[in-house]
This record gives sequence, structure tokens and C-alpha cells, in this order.
Amino acid sequence: MEILEQIAREAEKNTQVPAYPRSVEKVIAAVMSSSDFWKIVDLSDEPLPLVAEILKLLNKHDLVAFEGDQILLTEAGAELARKAKIEAFASHVCPRCKGRGVVIDNLREAYEKFLKIQEERPPAIHQFDQGYVTPENTFARVALADSRGDLRGKKVVVLGDDDLMSIALALSGLPAKVTILEIDERLVNFIKEVSDKYNLGIDARVHDLRQPLPEDVVGAYDTFFTDPPETVEAIKAFVGRGVATLKAERCAGYFGVTRRESSLDKWRKIQKVLLDMGLVITDLIHNFNEYVNWDYYEEMRGWQLTPVKKAPEDIWYRSTQFRVETVRGFKGFNEPIVGDIYNDAESSTT
Amino acid sequence: MEILEQIAREAEKNTQVPAYPRSVEKVIAAVMSSSDFWKIVDLSDEPLPLVAEILKLLNKHDLVAFEGDQILLTEAGAELARKAKIEAFASHVCPRCKGRGVVIDNLREAYEKFLKIQEERPPAIHQFDQGYVTPENTFARVALADSRGDLRGKKVVVLGDDDLMSIALALSGLPAKVTILEIDERLVNFIKEVSDKYNLGIDARVHDLRQPLPEDVVGAYDTFFTDPPETVEAIKAFVGRGVATLKAERCAGYFGVTRRESSLDKWRKIQKVLLDMGLVITDLIHNFNEYVNWDYYEEMRGWQLTPVKKAPEDIWYRSTQFRVETVRGFKGFNEPIVGDIYNDAESSTT
Repeated sequence: MEILEQIAREAEKNTQVPAYPRSVEKVIAAVMSSSDFWKIVDLSDEPLPLVAEILKLLNKHDLVAFEGDQILLTEAGAELARKAKIEAFASHVCPRCKGRGVVIDNLREAYEKFLKIQEERPPAIHQFDQGYVTPENTFARVALADSRGDLRGKKVVVLGDDDLMSIALALSGLPAKVTILEIDERLVNFIKEVSDKYNLGIDARVHDLRQPLPEDVVGAYDTFFTDPPETVEAIKAFVGRGVATLKAERCAGYFGVTRRESSLDKWRKIQKVLLDMGLVITDLIHNFNEYVNWDYYEEMRGWQLTPVKKAPEDIWYRSTQFRVETVRGFKGFNEPIVGDIYNDAESSTT
Repeated sequence: MEILEQIAREAEKNTQVPAYPRSVEKVIAAVMSSSDFWKIVDLSDEPLPLVAEILKLLNKHDLVAFEGDQILLTEAGAELARKAKIEAFASHVCPRCKGRGVVIDNLREAYEKFLKIQEERPPAIHQFDQGYVTPENTFARVALADSRGDLRGKKVVVLGDDDLMSIALALSGLPAKVTILEIDERLVNFIKEVSDKYNLGIDARVHDLRQPLPEDVVGAYDTFFTDPPETVEAIKAFVGRGVATLKAERCAGYFGVTRRESSLDKWRKIQKVLLDMGLVITDLIHNFNEYVNWDYYEEMRGWQLTPVKKAPEDIWYRSTQFRVETVRGFKGFNEPIVGDIYNDAESSTT
């Protein structure tokens, strides 16, 4: 289809985000499935800035209409979809585990405690680019890591802890030790208070991860968790920090990478960086992580780009859960991080 | 632990399979969870030849005992486990989807038909290194691919079809076209008969995939499925064939890679090969595929290696489901394949 090709080319030119006819197809399929901008971003699995641009171009070609805050396929758009054999999205996602593959039934007691504790958590703030996942999601990560043998009797470190992973891990009673490094003093204080109150023994420290790791943390852990910003350089630096905490081959790391701020071309570069660090990717679980909507959405870059202005109602920001393991020759990264590595053309929530 | 290190070193020397203290830990954890050899291979997620060798070495050091066909931790083994903080495996796998993340509820009608059809299938034979997954598994792949938008209105090709994917795909009614290329005339004839009887329109051809693809298949499809042998060269060649069938960027491929015949060091090499082909890995779903036990197990290399001789009772051979997508610059492989690319030190079922 010539028009899909043309829109892809123009969208890429305007956004500097890799775009393909298939990207345009996915946005059309998403519009066939929902009229809500955030849901369209979610379903299309293309970077937000690209989805916004493609929608504007589809609108320019009268294939999509903006009616109030609704995004709809026009008659001509529907005709194009028929000709190009584009259909609405179907989902066969497991209703029991939401597609994660793991359940938290055996962690129920710790989970109930966590639910109560996290009600008092400090809100996500823009200054530190924060955003956190649902409590169920946090525990699903514990379940996943335990299923892979990465927690029992193991030393675990959490690098940046918006999600309160350290509290969930310690409440599970599985790891031998839990350490967190976090820049936000509010969070560190909260975790310390909880740790004292529930006798969790969490080693919580204020630390700016752009600086090298404290010496005693290097090469001392079995498993790390982190949630890096979504540029290739940031993944290299922050996952590299995680790898630097690990003590040996066949230790594991967990982190999320989203499609909302990353094209698959960028994903490929990220995966190359991971392999080059001496890591192997063992798990990639689609939409494992779901982020609670944060309050500062009107301040983020993505808000400027949306073709219709409507606050997100449901969860739309999801990420794929990565699990990596170190093999022979692995090498972390513990140099200072300089310059802005938080932004690229595909990012939108900073 | 000195002894774990020592056994890993010796096991690697004897098998030429990369081995780590963590590999030995995993085998011990598996023995703590089951006394059955096949279940121990399954749980440890280490290559069969390595597990067999580690068990023999643990036995030599009186850490593991062989009693009849049972494999048990000795008193000294249990003491080592306590000291090294090794614990039995825990599982939080979702009981509803078996950890696959997708369910087949919406495909129930086609699935019921498939169940009946596959009862008549030709048995797996050693000559073609065959082995097939459960019918539910075959349909879970259909559900996964449909969830990712890879089937509706799409042209789909199946390269090697032990699993009767082509029949499942055609019964679902989703793809615009289904083609299969398969070396085994028995299977091709069976698929043709089924296709005629149920009016499925499957394009089934006898083809040896070591030979270049038929011209009309090159660059003509949206999605491929295959199940390559487990050497780096074979993955390069057979996934490369799959990629050569694809018509454009952002088309998808599905295949399984196991841990039963591949160390994670080999996995890393495999992943490098995939990225180098211009692919990105979007999904890695652990133990998605489960293979029905085949009749020729006593003829396979793995049988010679087992420390106790006992036929597998439950499913033990599983693989991780890979999904890849093409991005800019992707390049398939359509040269003739020469020499033996089916075997390496880690393989055991050939």
C-alpha cells in the first residue's frame, strides 16, 4: 500500500523515530480497537511520539478523525483497512496471570502486608523521572525471580526503588540479604522506617547511581533489580551498574524495557549492548510491568505531542520484563556517568 | 565452595560443555526436588550431557547416591546444600496457562477438531530427528501469534512441521494463506489429506530445508514458524531460511530453543546470530513448549549418558519460545546447507 509507505516515511522524517508501513498498520489496527489515545499507544506497541505523529498524518489524509477527545477511523480509513487486510487487535492473554506466566498465590501473606504498607509511600515525582508499578506487579517480579532460583539464600540488590521491590523482597523472607541504592531521600527514609517497623533488615542507602557504586556493593550480589531510563546509553550504564554488583557467572538481573519509548530498532541496539556485556537474555515477558498513572503527565513531553488532550484513565504504560544472566567473560560498568543520557527522540515521559 | 568449583571444572573438561559452580548448585537443587533423572534435567535447566556428568561426579564424591533408578542426596550432600544455602526449586508458574501467558479459550472449536485430527498423525521418527509438542501447546502458539498481530490476514509459512502447526493455523481460520515445507513425505501426505478433507487450502510441499527455498517462497510471507536443531550453525541456517521467506521489515518469526541441549553460553551465541541477521527478539517465554515423549529415546545419545537407566515418564523436554521481528537491514540465509550442523557437545537427542 503506497499510502502506508508514504505516511511511514513522513512520520519518520518528522519524529526521527524508525517507522515502517507495519507501524502505520499497527496504529490503524489500534484505532479499530479503541478510540482512546492512550489505549491506542498501548495496543500499537509503537513509541508514543511516533503514534502521535502517525495519527496526525492519518488525520491529514482523512483516514482518521478527531472528534472531541475521541480518535476514530473515517469511512476512507475503514476502506483502506479492508484493502490492506488490517484487523482489530485480538488478545488471548491469560486472565489469571495477566500474561505474566507467574502467580503470587504462595506469597499471599507477604503481599497483604505489602498492600497496607505501600499506601503510605511517597508519590512519584518528575524530578527523578519516577513512576511505579502496581503492588501485584511488584510481587509478580518476586514470584518470577523465585521461580528462576534467584532469591532463596541469595544476596539481592535493588538499584533505584520506585517500586518498593526491596520491601516486597524482604517481606517474602526469601533472600539472605536485601540492599537498595536510591537517589530519593524520601524513598530511602520510607523504606528504612518500614524495615525498622517490620524488622526486615533492609540495607537502604541514599546513592546517586550516576556515581560509581559503593565499594562494598561491587561484585558482592547474586541478583539485581533495576528499572533504567530508556535510552541505549542509559541501559548500558544502569544495567552495567547492576552487572557490576554481581559476584560471578550465572548470576541474574531483572529490569523492564518498554515499547512506549523505544522502537524495535532501539531494542535491537539495547540487546546488542546486553550481549556485549557478557549477558544472555533468558526471559522477555511482554507487558509484564504495568505502571500506575502518575500525576505529572501534563508536564511530560508526551503530553505536548498528543493529538487530542485527554488524561489517561486506565493503565497504558507497560514494559517487557527482561531477565539476563552473566556468562563467562561478563563485564559490568562502574565509571561515573556524565552528560544527559536520559533523552532521545523516542522518549516521551521525561 | 571449593567442591562446587572443582566439580564444575571437571564436568566441563569431561563434556566440553561450559559449566559453573552455579550449574552444580542447580543440579543439587534439582536432586533436592526430585529423584527422577529426567525431572532433574528438566528442573536444573542445564544441558543433559552436563547434568549426567555432574551427577556422576557428585556420586563419586559421595554427595549423591544412585539407588536403583532413584537419584538421592546423601547425608554429606545435604550438609553441603545447607552450607552453600542451596534450596529445592520453587515454582509460581500460572496453573491456568502453564506459564505461557496465553490461553486458547477463543480457539476452542478449532482446537477440538485438531485434537481429533492429530490422533491419526504419523509417529515421530529418529531419521528426521522428530519430536512434537502437545496439541494444547500447538494452539498456544497460534494464540500467541494472534495476540501479536501476526496471523489475521497474513501469509504464514511453516518450515518443518512435526507439530502440525499448519493444520492448527488453517483450522483457526485466521491467516490468509498457510504454506508448509517439510522433508518427511509421510507428514506432507497427512497434512494434504487433512487439508482436502476439511477444505483448509494448505499449500503443503515436500522440501529438504538443507536446499535453498523454492523461488516463490522467498520474500513472500508475513510470519514464519520453525523448530530448528540446536546448534549455532543450525539456528543460523534454519532461522535464516525463515527470515528469507519474509517480505519486509517488522515481520515475525517463531521458534523454540531449549536448555536441554544448549548451555546459556551457546544461547548467547545464538542470540548474537539473531541480532546479526537484523532481527530483534521481542519475546522469550520460558518452558512454553513441551514435547511429548518420543519412542526412540533408547537410540538417542542422551540415553548412553544417563547415570541410571529409566524411561522418561512425564514430559521433561521443554523449550523457550522465541519471537523475533525483522528491522531495517535484515538479511535471511538461502544458500545450500552442507556438512553436519545437527550435532555439538551439548546435544543429546540426536
